[in-house]
Amino acid sequence: MEAKKTNIFSPNSPGQNVNPDLDIERKNISFPIEHLTNILDNGANNTKLRREVEAVLEADPEFSQENQYFQNQNERYESAVRKTVYLSQKMAKMGWIEDSPEQNYCFKFLSDNLAFGLHIIFMKSILALGTDEQIDKWIPLAKKNFILGTYAQTELGHGSNLRGLETTATFDVATQKFILNTPTLSAMKWWPGDLGRTASHAVVFAQLYLKGRCYGMHPFIVQIRSLRDHSPCQGITLGDIGPKMGFDNVDNGFLILKNVHVPRENMLAKFSQVLPDGQYKKQGSEKINYLTMVVIRVTILRGSIVPCLMKACTIAIRYSVVRRQSELKPGDPEAKILDYQTQQQKLFPQLATAYAFHFSSAYLEKTFEKCYNQTKEGKFDLLPELHALAAGLKVITTEYCSAGVEVCRRACGGHGYSLLSGLPSIYTKVIPSCTYEGENTILLLQTARFLIKCYGMAQMGQPLPSSVAYFSSVVFGKCQAQGKNDFLNPDIYTDAYKHRALRFIRNAAMKLQQLVQAGKTQHEAWNQCTVQLARAAMAHCHYIVIQKFAEELGKHAKGSAIGRILKNLCDLFALHGIFSNAGDFMQDAYFSTEQIDRVTETYLDLLAVIRRDAVPLVDAFDFSDALLNSALGSYDGHAYQRLYEWAKKSPTNHQGDRVFKTYLKPLFQNALSKL
Amino acid sequence: MEAKKTNIFSPNSPGQNVNPDLDIERKNISFPIEHLTNILDNGANNTKLRREVEAVLEADPEFSQENQYFQNQNERYESAVRKTVYLSQKMAKMGWIEDSPEQNYCFKFLSDNLAFGLHIIFMKSILALGTDEQIDKWIPLAKKNFILGTYAQTELGHGSNLRGLETTATFDVATQKFILNTPTLSAMKWWPGDLGRTASHAVVFAQLYLKGRCYGMHPFIVQIRSLRDHSPCQGITLGDIGPKMGFDNVDNGFLILKNVHVPRENMLAKFSQVLPDGQYKKQGSEKINYLTMVVIRVTILRGSIVPCLMKACTIAIRYSVVRRQSELKPGDPEAKILDYQTQQQKLFPQLATAYAFHFSSAYLEKTFEKCYNQTKEGKFDLLPELHALAAGLKVITTEYCSAGVEVCRRACGGHGYSLLSGLPSIYTKVIPSCTYEGENTILLLQTARFLIKCYGMAQMGQPLPSSVAYFSSVVFGKCQAQGKNDFLNPDIYTDAYKHRALRFIRNAAMKLQQLVQAGKTQHEAWNQCTVQLARAAMAHCHYIVIQKFAEELGKHAKGSAIGRILKNLCDLFALHGIFSNAGDFMQDAYFSTEQIDRVTETYLDLLAVIRRDAVPLVDAFDFSDALLNSALGSYDGHAYQRLYEWAKKSPTNHQGDRVFKTYLKPLFQNALSKL
Repeated sequence: MEAKKTNIFSPNSPGQNVNPDLDIERKNISFPIEHLTNILDNGANNTKLRREVEAVLEADPEFSQENQYFQNQNERYESAVRKTVYLSQKMAKMGWIEDSPEQNYCFKFLSDNLAFGLHIIFMKSILALGTDEQIDKWIPLAKKNFILGTYAQTELGHGSNLRGLETTATFDVATQKFILNTPTLSAMKWWPGDLGRTASHAVVFAQLYLKGRCYGMHPFIVQIRSLRDHSPCQGITLGDIGPKMGFDNVDNGFLILKNVHVPRENMLAKFSQVLPDGQYKKQGSEKINYLTMVVIRVTILRGSIVPCLMKACTIAIRYSVVRRQSELKPGDPEAKILDYQTQQQKLFPQLATAYAFHFSSAYLEKTFEKCYNQTKEGKFDLLPELHALAAGLKVITTEYCSAGVEVCRRACGGHGYSLLSGLPSIYTKVIPSCTYEGENTILLLQTARFLIKCYGMAQMGQPLPSSVAYFSSVVFGKCQAQGKNDFLNPDIYTDAYKHRALRFIRNAAMKLQQLVQAGKTQHEAWNQCTVQLARAAMAHCHYIVIQKFAEELGKHAKGSAIGRILKNLCDLFALHGIFSNAGDFMQDAYFSTEQIDRVTETYLDLLAVIRRDAVPLVDAFDFSDALLNSALGSYDGHAYQRLYEWAKKSPTNHQGDRVFKTYLKPLFQNALSKL
Repeated sequence: MEAKKTNIFSPNSPGQNVNPDLDIERKNISFPIEHLTNILDNGANNTKLRREVEAVLEADPEFSQENQYFQNQNERYESAVRKTVYLSQKMAKMGWIEDSPEQNYCFKFLSDNLAFGLHIIFMKSILALGTDEQIDKWIPLAKKNFILGTYAQTELGHGSNLRGLETTATFDVATQKFILNTPTLSAMKWWPGDLGRTASHAVVFAQLYLKGRCYGMHPFIVQIRSLRDHSPCQGITLGDIGPKMGFDNVDNGFLILKNVHVPRENMLAKFSQVLPDGQYKKQGSEKINYLTMVVIRVTILRGSIVPCLMKACTIAIRYSVVRRQSELKPGDPEAKILDYQTQQQKLFPQLATAYAFHFSSAYLEKTFEKCYNQTKEGKFDLLPELHALAAGLKVITTEYCSAGVEVCRRACGGHGYSLLSGLPSIYTKVIPSCTYEGENTILLLQTARFLIKCYGMAQMGQPLPSSVAYFSSVVFGKCQAQGKNDFLNPDIYTDAYKHRALRFIRNAAMKLQQLVQAGKTQHEAWNQCTVQLARAAMAHCHYIVIQKFAEELGKHAKGSAIGRILKNLCDLFALHGIFSNAGDFMQDAYFSTEQIDRVTETYLDLLAVIRRDAVPLVDAFDFSDALLNSALGSYDGHAYQRLYEWAKKSPTNHQGDRVFKTYLKPLFQNALSKL
């Protein structure tokens, strides 16, 4: 009755045993998959190295993720600690050094099965904010995990507004110590990872008080637990914040400080120090430090967020060619659900989105590099633009990827609700990225502030940063496209996105001005425009993503198979955006009703074009079965077989008959004589 | 340091101890909350009765949901069984009879803490599909829980397309038995609740084979487990399908049948029976039976889906007036986040949506009643319209409520990611409703099919069912609204939604026709139009919801406080829909750019109007703290206090120091000599 037995984790290569419904999708492939994989890996060498690292990890049973969906929070945490400690040993054995590409591939592979993530931030913040002596003292210990640290910034009542943090650090000249306190309930540190059950130390952010005057937020190294027995240090109350939607591997924690004494030399003092007499001294520029913070926002996108969407697409698209449901034509066998237009309309825009954000994230990384190199030479003029760009792209990438993952999950119907599909855990992993590293609405408004400022500069004819150079170039007119094919011209749709962005920015700027002229204060006016400002910033980012995707096309020969397939994806991403936000593009009659109807037709036609390449396009993401960890999405397409095999292992099937004996048997015995 | 200690579950009434930031929101209330609660309860008597039932359940520690977020799947299941068995006893003691309002209030209060949900469906299907003898035999046993049943329809590889189900039942004249089989892996029953670890019996749907000929799907009562020791009956393999995103209280299961013999009298035979000689005999009309299926789709909306959004709104809005973040004006104290326009724009449309769908669901229930009464008299002509309406309203309600719950959850920032907020479990409860009781895309296309047929009838001047009567009344023109206030006229926006729906339906019908004329088959043409057909059906349903909300306004005196507040919500719901889908309304220049700009302004102004009543409007939903089970959303507003108190109870804080001793201590001891 059962399909032929296969290994649960079959190797990610075409085998004899692939489900024919999936196998046929890999015949007559229209482009070289390996070439596209190399492009995504940024070079064939990287593909090779990545596969080598993954093969080592997959071969080691210590790294198996097989039982992940059956574990509770405690088990997931313990397993993550075990794997992380073991990984250090493994890396040493393999000769993989810190910050190497190998390490990055390890982190990417094991991602939500590792612990000590905040320990890395702990080290980075000492390196960024500490003096040489402080670095020499703490970093060697931290690198070897002889101490484990966390980064304690967020408070129960305070997140993105750092100035609002309430924790205090008061310097006592007599003892030469800072006295740290949590003055209110809402001031307790809340959320830091590794804090709940792991860390021995923390970089604690607190308002510095010297002789009764507040000097603002400063970082302090605080020992929080005994290295001997792990008990909380004097004046410290701490613990785990409890169950969450996901991130069970991470022990997010809380921390209350009550008259905790910290030696003077534990204030991280690269940019400001407190002298023995309690005098405050500033030194150097903190601007370079800003970049060490923004780098996380930049690197999580390609490293962690976009891969979530890529994985979800892989699972949903492979499943959609092995799942059959109803007939397309009466009398035919049941059709693959991917052959239904409605299923294509759900999944293919997500596939195009994954590719689009891969390229825009790569662009952001390059921009960051450039900026970083300039700041090292003391030039800081690119910083505001980088900040606006990183904030905006972080927002649009996390929003689209989160929404896309959920579309993919739901497109798998009931089975997408099973943890065994792998999809729910991808969603619970990606969705908090809309909140962490800067809450998205707040970030979007920071980008908007930059845009409004630049719009003002454009009005005055001043030179503009390159990402907003278009502010001075747009002529408000109408879209010139006529026939359906005109809408497949990247110049046409890029211009449309440009027009839309600038119109929103201009309107928001005008409304702001009108409100101020009508007597509102700047801040009242700003708040009354924030919905439109956020929308304008989003439209700007959308334009940037389209622009960068279109630029990528220029790197590939026009007639080439890769060039063609990437153009299809770029077209789809762009047209889907117009189709979904038609009103934005119809304002000022930029697009007419007829043009929007053409866009719709062109967009729907593209779905049928992408259909042929859908499976190869997710194969190119090159996720091994072990990495995907999905009963629905494995390379061989034996979705039903795996669901069944995995379900049988569930702890819900191994609990004995306690419920029967206690609750059901006393009831059922009444029926025995009657049936 | 901590705020004054309060009971975790404080009574749902204004106390001395309410957080002042929440308390002030309840001063100077602009409408009588109790009156609105009575409207939502459909009468003051119901409010009273509901509160009495809830008080009884809250006072009984057996029904406490306090530890719910700390329990694993096994614990949740066991707890649900225990509560359900106990509830039967409690109801008997209280004199609350079956199908009484009291029972409904119990189910609503305990919802995702109960088991045996499919046992109810098991009974309903016997009542609907069984002969009088079958009902007499099985129902008395089932009512007392002496047997527990499930409803085994869905298969691993087959969901919404019932004709595709593969399970077979072959009649053997010699033994007078049906022989049931699961012929393939994909044919195993998969998903039925109560199947995994509970049920003794199942109504199994299988293709009936008589003398080699298939007669289609039929229902059979099959004993699946021993009443004596709960072991699977002969030929039966079954179990639990494992971990899911939610519904941990339900033991969704799988079932494989291998030559399972079922007596002839176990085929539910109200509408067709198999005679001893293997002859097939049909009798009566199954149309009335259809209604017993659709009733679930109708009643879950107001009973279960809309309350999810109401709860999420309650939590998010209360939290948003106790959470303070950044300053609206420099130098001011941090502002309540609900005072930010962006936060209002997230939450208030959800609030309006909850009210809108409450009224449209009530309308659907009334339509169902009417139809049910007519079918009992043998009149079936309302059935197609009811089917289209129930399918469409199920889709729009589940889609909007699911999306809305997630908006509310995310609007609570990081704390919305904690299970203790109560929001993640609301999301995992509401989201599968988009799949169960008919997958939403499939249902939407069924509604579309009805609409296309009616559109054709309208073209030919034939009389139309009332919900689509507007097909013959619309004149394609332009919206006549001028000033901002015109957009607050329900006639204006109802007409706009009507126009949009009809335009979409007309366009889809025209495209269908064109494709057929161009040589496509009906089925190819249909598939190529499904994206647009689904959109058209959605627009139709959106119009119905607006129309019913606008009709509700007519029931309240225009100048009355209730009338005013409901009109604000109706306006907001309607204008938010136009603001969010502007392109739909701008086609054919129905709305001009200037009109859309007016809509945007009017919509944004309304947010500020709703702001004043936001807390009273969620208070009116009248959820007790025990029912909400949210650290963020309780009536007294002590969100931080509760998060902290609840977190301390988490099992993650009571696991001893095993991880330290095993993994950390060996590392940390290396630092002892150096620090």
